[in-house]
Amino acid sequence: LPPIPTPFHADESLALDSFRSNIERWNMTGVSGYVVLGSNGEFVHLSPAERKLVVEAARTAIPDDLHFIVGCTFNSTRESVKYVQEMAPLGVEAFLVNTPFYYRSEMTAERLAGHFTRLADASPVPILLYNIPQYTGVSMTAETVAELSQHPNIVGVKESSGQFSLVTNILRLVPESFTVLSGSASVFYPALALGARGGVLAVGSLAWRACLDLMTAVRANDHVRAGDLQLRLLPVAEAVTTRFGIAGLKAGLELLGFYGGPPRAPLKEADQSVRAKIKSTFQASGLFPELE
Amino acid sequence: LPPIPTPFHADESLALDSFRSNIERWNMTGVSGYVVLGSNGEFVHLSPAERKLVVEAARTAIPDDLHFIVGCTFNSTRESVKYVQEMAPLGVEAFLVNTPFYYRSEMTAERLAGHFTRLADASPVPILLYNIPQYTGVSMTAETVAELSQHPNIVGVKESSGQFSLVTNILRLVPESFTVLSGSASVFYPALALGARGGVLAVGSLAWRACLDLMTAVRANDHVRAGDLQLRLLPVAEAVTTRFGIAGLKAGLELLGFYGGPPRAPLKEADQSVRAKIKSTFQASGLFPELE
Amino acid sequence: LPPIPTPFHADESLALDSFRSNIERWNMTGVSGYVVLGSNGEFVHLSPAERKLVVEAARTAIPDDLHFIVGCTFNSTRESVKYVQEMAPLGVEAFLVNTPFYYRSEMTAERLAGHFTRLADASPVPILLYNIPQYTGVSMTAETVAELSQHPNIVGVKESSGQFSLVTNILRLVPESFTVLSGSASVFYPALALGARGGVLAVGSLAWRACLDLMTAVRANDHVRAGDLQLRLLPVAEAVTTRFGIAGLKAGLELLGFYGGPPRAPLKEADQSVRAKIKSTFQASGLFPELE
Amino acid sequence: LPPIPTPFHADESLALDSFRSNIERWNMTGVSGYVVLGSNGEFVHLSPAERKLVVEAARTAIPDDLHFIVGCTFNSTRESVKYVQEMAPLGVEAFLVNTPFYYRSEMTAERLAGHFTRLADASPVPILLYNIPQYTGVSMTAETVAELSQHPNIVGVKESSGQFSLVTNILRLVPESFTVLSGSASVFYPALALGARGGVLAVGSLAWRACLDLMTAVRANDHVRAGDLQLRLLPVAEAVTTRFGIAGLKAGLELLGFYGGPPRAPLKEADQSVRAKIKSTFQASGLFPELE
Repeated sequence: LPPIPTPFHADESLALDSFRSNIERWNMTGVSGYVVLGSNGEFVHLSPAERKLVVEAARTAIPDDLHFIVGCTFNSTRESVKYVQEMAPLGVEAFLVNTPFYYRSEMTAERLAGHFTRLADASPVPILLYNIPQYTGVSMTAETVAELSQHPNIVGVKESSGQFSLVTNILRLVPESFTVLSGSASVFYPALALGARGGVLAVGSLAWRACLDLMTAVRANDHVRAGDLQLRLLPVAEAVTTRFGIAGLKAGLELLGFYGGPPRAPLKEADQSVRAKIKSTFQASGLFPELE
Repeated sequence: LPPIPTPFHADESLALDSFRSNIERWNMTGVSGYVVLGSNGEFVHLSPAERKLVVEAARTAIPDDLHFIVGCTFNSTRESVKYVQEMAPLGVEAFLVNTPFYYRSEMTAERLAGHFTRLADASPVPILLYNIPQYTGVSMTAETVAELSQHPNIVGVKESSGQFSLVTNILRLVPESFTVLSGSASVFYPALALGARGGVLAVGSLAWRACLDLMTAVRANDHVRAGDLQLRLLPVAEAVTTRFGIAGLKAGLELLGFYGGPPRAPLKEADQSVRAKIKSTFQASGLFPELE
Repeated sequence: LPPIPTPFHADESLALDSFRSNIERWNMTGVSGYVVLGSNGEFVHLSPAERKLVVEAARTAIPDDLHFIVGCTFNSTRESVKYVQEMAPLGVEAFLVNTPFYYRSEMTAERLAGHFTRLADASPVPILLYNIPQYTGVSMTAETVAELSQHPNIVGVKESSGQFSLVTNILRLVPESFTVLSGSASVFYPALALGARGGVLAVGSLAWRACLDLMTAVRANDHVRAGDLQLRLLPVAEAVTTRFGIAGLKAGLELLGFYGGPPRAPLKEADQSVRAKIKSTFQASGLFPELE
Repeated sequence: LPPIPTPFHADESLALDSFRSNIERWNMTGVSGYVVLGSNGEFVHLSPAERKLVVEAARTAIPDDLHFIVGCTFNSTRESVKYVQEMAPLGVEAFLVNTPFYYRSEMTAERLAGHFTRLADASPVPILLYNIPQYTGVSMTAETVAELSQHPNIVGVKESSGQFSLVTNILRLVPESFTVLSGSASVFYPALALGARGGVLAVGSLAWRACLDLMTAVRANDHVRAGDLQLRLLPVAEAVTTRFGIAGLKAGLELLGFYGGPPRAPLKEADQSVRAKIKSTFQASGLFPELE
């Protein structure tokens, strides 16, 4: 489930054609679906009208048998409700809903639970919880996730902190029917080994083969192969997240023949020096034979 | 310059009549103007259409001889530019522009400077910089502020971190024509003593008399009085910011006969126990004779 | 390799007899050795003379075929050198050397590398690096560990941050002969699965059976069993570390018939309510049949 | 009250002669006393025997009419008690006692209060509280300080966080007889203006004239002069603390003809480039006519 980036032209306007053609290429890779308008999709850089265009474009390009999850990052419950009610009819399968965060010191467990409950009550389609403290400064506890997992319209969680104890405690406390997805490549293998259903990983837009092989290896109890893939994936994943961010991800896509383009300012397109580091990291991983 | 809250009805819809009547009361207090749609104005909880309604309502209620500053908190430069160009014609005097922050680890000095420069180039009216790391996780350095102070359309800064060394270094490095405003009551007195022009303080919506007296005392070199007011202001200011947040601020307004109402969820209206603590803090300060 | 606590009498004086009798019990459990005077051994609460007494007592109680590692936590390189040179002749096999930390903002990679290199040059016995940012506020990078792994007298690392990406990157970058030990139970299983040699875990003083079984399961490619043990271990480990600290660990030992006693002030002995929570956590884990 | 550094020879051994001759020069500057073995005195880099030598040397060099405060930084209450009881007979006037900090997440207000109370009960001479979270990761609240200010043997506090709201709240809550000292030059002027008795500032070892002038100006209600001195002091103070640390302080002393020498490893002596920056910062401040 790659959380795919939103492409822009050089003048930062939406590049919807490139968006669709990127998706058409990913459709042939074996990915089980998409997250659109997540953190890597620059949700927070888009206008409300643009978000709608992106969802419509994605809907036309994504086959019906692949998952189609759409991100939702707002600070007020009210805006979140309006958004999911407007977007759901466009064919959204589920929403990946971030924690509110601007008034972070007030985001108690009780308030976060209240936010997600009210939204889940109001949403025409299921929601998944989204925890990404490195961007929001807010983190849900495993106990809050477990409490929310009882809601019939809350069907899963994407945990992106990379804190393995949190993923473990979530897996320990939620019912088996609740979908736990790793949102951080740094714990992808061990999260799968303990029962996570899959991953929503930036690196999955690039190294889908390795990600899918890793899942297969874990299911086949081939932990030597899974461990080897995890060790190879980590530096690639770090290059397109913590080290070089969305600009790194887009530069990586260009290396593989996809459309990349610039992120929106104040983020900046990767320069030649960054691109060279990304390329050598990709090559060193052994996961991209086409680059060798 | 109180950064006034945006009032809502019990169902969280905009209470524009109450907004205007609150402003009409503040108009008679001697404040020199307003900041609308700042952090205390719940900018991040409103839709684009609601922001426009709030600005229009404020414009009708604020006399022409008082300052009228409007907040601007976006993550992309592009959205910020669109916003200031749409809002400026409504009669906005200047914009108070927050740092972008979602991709916080990428907010280098260079990118922040680029954001503010591009926005200042595009804005029909002047802008003030806004630094509030407790909400954004991003802080500008004094050197960045000094660099930006050279731009003809960047006329000042509201520094809300409460880190006095930062205010001091800003005052040390910017030209005298550049307006430095304290955004944290915790350093209001010393910031004024070192040359800050004024304050944009949540507590100013409530204890405007004390705030104005403090400014007068500093100008009159009456530092005994200024120090006494600072000591009295701090617990009141903390009650309506760090301790009880916007809900505390709105509860405080109700104590003084203004319209308060609830903040938008996930924030929650102050309960009786919080209201009692706020009231006793106000009473203990000696700054609200009407409550004694 | 349990990092065993240092026992005290009720008046906080050293309880060396209890220390020896505790060790004699652990000797029969199958543990492969001990870490004495680590963070759980309250190194920082002891006088220099007491540290010597503890090492001497441990030496008499630990059989020669078990590992005997001694902690070393100082802020100056000079004091560290003196310490290892004085202690090594008492029969220490290796030292587990913490990062200096008081002047944390100055602890650059270069200075940390200089510290460990000078100490390794001077030490009569090998050293292991110790990274525990939750106590020190300082963290080594994988690159620094890899650089130091080239030193002939630096033979391993105990990584206790619980940040799985750090353990993974260390395993990726160091030679196979270099011993990587997990110092955080929260990543014990996945660290083993990727090639860590073992663990130095507070919970190992209590749940040694589960820890040893987990290691056996990983070696036997029984990942279902390993995953199950990891899920059971985590809440037990959290109870005696992050939740209730050394007091929790000592209370846990008492539950199992060891000597526990108080930690030194300002830490405080666990009260009845804490002891009840620890007991129920242990029982719920299913790892302590003797408590059921 | 400068918190003076402990000098070392090039081989890092104690340079007690230089220590005494430095003190003899400061004796003639008008400072009201000394803090020995504080954070700038590298307490944490010395052996117990060396600490005794430093205190004895200081005692012989400091005239009886100047204050003589000695630092105390331990993690266990027991070690702290032993230390103050051993050192007090050497002629110590009072101890400046740091918060315990290694097990930082356990340092609740109650435990910190217990630590200081037990130490104050046992100490033959008065103690001052010392709060310096940038090194310890632990901060006392104003409420804890106020509670401890009731103890007859706790006579003051050195607050070094630089968080002005904390100093303000302490001043607001403690009795007037309780000595509040600013430990951060960044808030020296406003702390004095609100009632602090003085400062314990690294920069005071260098810019004693400016520090004393600032105190005089505040007492004389000359706030223009006080503000000007504060603006000039800040960059000098930052150069010898946050920017270049103890190495910067020692290099600064050499600029003024004192003995400086290296700090102990892993800290490193200032190189030529750092020394040049320090010199130009000192010159730009206008506070060191002898350097112009």
